[in-house]
Amino acid sequence: MNIVVAQSGGPTCAINASLVGVFRQALKTEEIDAVFGSRCGIEGIIKDDMVDLTRVIRSNEDMELLRQTPSTVLGSCRYKLPMLDEEGADEMYANIFACLDKHRIGAFFYIGGNDSMDTVDKLSKYGLATGSDIRFVGIPKTIDNDLPETDHTPGFGSAAKYVCATVQEIIRDSSVYSIDSVTIIEVMGRHAGWLTASTCMLRVNNEIAPHLIYLPECDFSAEKFLEDVRAERAKHQAVIVAVSEGLEIDGDSARSGAVDNFGHKYLSGIGKALEQLVRDEIGCKVRSVELNVMQRCSSHICSKTDIDEAEQIGAEAVKAAMRGATGVTMVFKRVSDKPYLVNIETADTSLMANKEKFFPRKWINSAGNGISDEAIKYFLPLIQGEVDVFMKNGMPRHFKYSNIPV
Amino acid sequence: MNIVVAQSGGPTCAINASLVGVFRQALKTEEIDAVFGSRCGIEGIIKDDMVDLTRVIRSNEDMELLRQTPSTVLGSCRYKLPMLDEEGADEMYANIFACLDKHRIGAFFYIGGNDSMDTVDKLSKYGLATGSDIRFVGIPKTIDNDLPETDHTPGFGSAAKYVCATVQEIIRDSSVYSIDSVTIIEVMGRHAGWLTASTCMLRVNNEIAPHLIYLPECDFSAEKFLEDVRAERAKHQAVIVAVSEGLEIDGDSARSGAVDNFGHKYLSGIGKALEQLVRDEIGCKVRSVELNVMQRCSSHICSKTDIDEAEQIGAEAVKAAMRGATGVTMVFKRVSDKPYLVNIETADTSLMANKEKFFPRKWINSAGNGISDEAIKYFLPLIQGEVDVFMKNGMPRHFKYSNIPV
Repeated sequence: MNIVVAQSGGPTCAINASLVGVFRQALKTEEIDAVFGSRCGIEGIIKDDMVDLTRVIRSNEDMELLRQTPSTVLGSCRYKLPMLDEEGADEMYANIFACLDKHRIGAFFYIGGNDSMDTVDKLSKYGLATGSDIRFVGIPKTIDNDLPETDHTPGFGSAAKYVCATVQEIIRDSSVYSIDSVTIIEVMGRHAGWLTASTCMLRVNNEIAPHLIYLPECDFSAEKFLEDVRAERAKHQAVIVAVSEGLEIDGDSARSGAVDNFGHKYLSGIGKALEQLVRDEIGCKVRSVELNVMQRCSSHICSKTDIDEAEQIGAEAVKAAMRGATGVTMVFKRVSDKPYLVNIETADTSLMANKEKFFPRKWINSAGNGISDEAIKYFLPLIQGEVDVFMKNGMPRHFKYSNIPV
Repeated sequence: MNIVVAQSGGPTCAINASLVGVFRQALKTEEIDAVFGSRCGIEGIIKDDMVDLTRVIRSNEDMELLRQTPSTVLGSCRYKLPMLDEEGADEMYANIFACLDKHRIGAFFYIGGNDSMDTVDKLSKYGLATGSDIRFVGIPKTIDNDLPETDHTPGFGSAAKYVCATVQEIIRDSSVYSIDSVTIIEVMGRHAGWLTASTCMLRVNNEIAPHLIYLPECDFSAEKFLEDVRAERAKHQAVIVAVSEGLEIDGDSARSGAVDNFGHKYLSGIGKALEQLVRDEIGCKVRSVELNVMQRCSSHICSKTDIDEAEQIGAEAVKAAMRGATGVTMVFKRVSDKPYLVNIETADTSLMANKEKFFPRKWINSAGNGISDEAIKYFLPLIQGEVDVFMKNGMPRHFKYSNIPV
């Protein structure tokens, strides 16, 4: 049989490592002939736009380079398949399966987040309903770490490592002047605050900051926030606050009306909004810093644990498909924090599709502005180790899209 | 004699390395007894707030750690000394010199940018006028690279290395979706576009982007900008634009009214302004990314050349003072690009105080939206080499302020 792999959703530092995992394992698997890559996620199947990966990834060195190249080498999409019983759905699915059959595809691997698992779920259900023997296997990735069933998601560890390193540098940067200041750092996370919460790890390196950490999992009141900031200002000259982008001030989510294809609001600007609030109500020096896309693409400081695991989970996905699994997504099950040990298993994709896993309330303090030491034990193993980054002319080398023959 | 060293102006990745350079050279110099650090720049002399650096930097390991810790370990200031003939100036200067004499200071080293050189200039002139034999020596630092007389400034190379690595990662991140987009990256630089221009180096790693680069050295017209973006959109799916924060749209510098102690306007938001312009006038997917303080404090990807040179120029400052130099600032004179070779010399501080060196017009293309290959030859040596970053628990280790006994 042939297989096809695709990448979907927002870019991360680890999504190409999972592609390498699938590719390398496929080369070792006798039943597998060609390995195709679908361009721009499921769109590549719909448009019959696939590429033979052996023409793209030509050597071990290519694999190593791709492992440490951020973003999605095959392109991505935010394409939502219709419900199976929706009007016109049958034609769409029949078209997709015709394309898969045409290329003798026996297994489809989709690397993505909870939206992408929706695609895996629908395709596997259509396949089962129509008697197709194509296997559909999900490979998780998201910097948000918000997928249920899995201990954590590939991409999260590298994002957390970047965020911690950068917040620590911003702490240094904020502490130089003899005047009081407040620095608000906006971290990605629409509904789940995992990445923002991960800044609590700085405590193990003897940082007191961030002094305040706010997640979308808790109600957020402007009045309480100002009270918290005033209390920290009494103790610290340079107050550092970490906030999730998805925070809603007094329940007001109306800051932006635009929505994406999955109905998610495009959020931005909570940092700026809180900066203005502090300026107006407290009147001290204040600035906000948005870590923006850097937190999902800064491969130059990725976590080796994350990249290695991303490759392993890709390889395990191939093994699971060869065992006949379909409608499943690969997951990490943590055995222990110290020594850090995880098993890779499969979970029913329908338990993960379109679902979010929130940061546990038990790890947030009662005031809703700080994170417990228990969370540190969970986070710490995920950011360990550094990848030996290939440099060229003083800059990281990347595997380029242009390497893909059009 | 004793000596005192102080740090001033905006933080960089290299300013602590210069402190280490002064300290290490002072330890080797027989005429020098104690080495003091002044807290928060010149403010520490005014308030008699100095610390014996041997109580702070206790080992070779401390020196190595401090070399790779961003920001200013002694704190900084943006304090402007009065003109020598201003009312009340005499009392201020007499107070400063009394403090220096009290601590038997024979030489004062000020690590800073063009504003800080103003301080060195005034102090040395007051000293000469009053017959003091204290020597005042400036050590340059600024990520803006805008000091005259010197080939480049410590701190710039590390900032440029971070900016290039990060812009390259944003290029990857921007290229994943099959829809057209424009990404605008705002880089620091009020009046001088060196840092923004440095992104041209990505060309040697076979990047085509940034497709457009705009510096404050050229007039910037909204109409011409939109024309440029439209032309690039015809050629590229994901258009990447690098802009300096100090850019003025059609000569309008009124975006922010606030000024700092030196009369500089606080600028921000050109990226957002251009994002809005593209959205309104072209209507495609567009986003802006502000590299913000990360570009001046991301020591985790600093340039080894920069850090080594920052230490060397600090050491040379001590040698110059011991030779009797005063009213001078240490400068790099480039001998050749390839092999890269620089000499460290002294320049008259009054030639550098409050003065800016702009990016050469000859290295900007005639359309005012791109940078020539000649500039690459200038930039490239400055970002070479990586520092072996000390890690702890998966995060960089920093030398902490709290190490300084109060």
